[in-house]
Amino acid sequence: MQIIQSKNELRKAVKSVKRKGKTIGFVPTMGFLHQGHLSLIRRAREENDIVVVSIFVNPTQFGPNEDLDAYPRDAQRDSDLMVAETVDIAFYPTVDALYPKGYTTYVEVQGPMTQVLCGRSRPTHFRGVTTIVTKLFNLVSPDRAYFGQKDAQQATVIQQMVRDLDFDLQVVVCPIVREADGMAMSSRNTYLTPGQRADAPMLNRALLDTKEMIEKGERSVAVVSRNIEKQISGIEDATIDYVAVVNAHTLEEMEMLSGEMLVALAVKFGRTRLIDNIRIEV
Amino acid sequence: MQIIQSKNELRKAVKSVKRKGKTIGFVPTMGFLHQGHLSLIRRAREENDIVVVSIFVNPTQFGPNEDLDAYPRDAQRDSDLMVAETVDIAFYPTVDALYPKGYTTYVEVQGPMTQVLCGRSRPTHFRGVTTIVTKLFNLVSPDRAYFGQKDAQQATVIQQMVRDLDFDLQVVVCPIVREADGMAMSSRNTYLTPGQRADAPMLNRALLDTKEMIEKGERSVAVVSRNIEKQISGIEDATIDYVAVVNAHTLEEMEMLSGEMLVALAVKFGRTRLIDNIRIEV
Repeated sequence: MQIIQSKNELRKAVKSVKRKGKTIGFVPTMGFLHQGHLSLIRRAREENDIVVVSIFVNPTQFGPNEDLDAYPRDAQRDSDLMVAETVDIAFYPTVDALYPKGYTTYVEVQGPMTQVLCGRSRPTHFRGVTTIVTKLFNLVSPDRAYFGQKDAQQATVIQQMVRDLDFDLQVVVCPIVREADGMAMSSRNTYLTPGQRADAPMLNRALLDTKEMIEKGERSVAVVSRNIEKQISGIEDATIDYVAVVNAHTLEEMEMLSGEMLVALAVKFGRTRLIDNIRIEV
Repeated sequence: MQIIQSKNELRKAVKSVKRKGKTIGFVPTMGFLHQGHLSLIRRAREENDIVVVSIFVNPTQFGPNEDLDAYPRDAQRDSDLMVAETVDIAFYPTVDALYPKGYTTYVEVQGPMTQVLCGRSRPTHFRGVTTIVTKLFNLVSPDRAYFGQKDAQQATVIQQMVRDLDFDLQVVVCPIVREADGMAMSSRNTYLTPGQRADAPMLNRALLDTKEMIEKGERSVAVVSRNIEKQISGIEDATIDYVAVVNAHTLEEMEMLSGEMLVALAVKFGRTRLIDNIRIEV
């Protein structure tokens, strides 16, 4: 595995790959890799000649009071995991290289898609995501880029951006990977206390419950949402940020349940904010 | 010359060029080509294997009360001129192809650079420019892109965007091309009445005068600006939008004249807004 820090070195490596007519699969990450990331890397490995993974905790997608400094990092473990998955290039840029003095350009998907769900409590988050992903796409020139369904809104926003800005690449969204007890894998799970960790799978159970209700015929958004809220409000230490039932493609709110839906939630366990979601089609 | 309307066809053509290891020089235009555009095309022709010119009157860079609908168009003449310059690919996308229903993503260079000069009277103009240029860069994958010094602020903003978003291409800024009487070439000159056309070269004369003053030792921004304002206010039918003396790289205002400066102005002749500028170094 080639470990690259500099943008110029990466560009050289990418050009040499492209000249040979080989395809590039790209997995952008913030590191502290878990099975969710590894599932993206494996999919990229299957579908492309060359796999590039970036490890970069992107400051522009964190709000002023969020966990940028506390975000978990383990470069050695990440590197070992990537080697085991036969990643070709691990890109570890520095903050100064990607956001030099005088940096001032942002890419923004405007409108409701970035204002609902996580966008409501994290108003500059998606602007940071689309900006860094644009930069990484320009540096890596991938044929396919892999994102997790765990961050459903992020995946939708990036698909919109790729379409709108005419990026010549395919966005591949991979299923959520869960722990044995159903908790969605996340680098932030490491923040949880043992008690919170024990309660966290209740988010997934509430979503599965919802799926069952809808499959049994429930069509009221209000009834479904109230049921999730009731289940979560029973968890000690948990505060609901949002529970939402939206159109899976546009993220717009629905009046009646129909078509492809996304049931998504964000819940704070103490200071740790967890998200989870499920796609349902009727 | 290959005339291409569809994005997919363009992508195919670009890929075939790239596979052969050839370089692409790109000249984005709004059509109604004049000698200024042709100078960019010639420079691109000299420096690259393949020359791509886009002809697209970009709606997102026009304000609600600007001249989008009136903007001059002459596809046949443009085509003849491009053929004469041995352009390889002329790209004529439609508005619907570049801004389909539901389009919502914008690229923005934030901060003073886009708020001063033309940005003051055209608050969404540069957002439209950086958005369309990003899209065209993604479609054309140029090695070099050519812009005119006539739109000095645009060139500076695009250089900032290319640097910030890590586009792997070189921005080449070419000198202003002028009519025999000194008037800067512009597609909008066609709007001028004969009387306005006769007076318009006074903009260039005021700039040349300024250069002489500065070269003779004048260092006061106020004195220089007042001199230009005085000359222009003597023109019948002319209203000053701005006269500015700024740092040529950052477009920031200067207290004392020094280093590389840009003296820029925008003047309305009736409803026709003309811009011109001169670079001066002391």
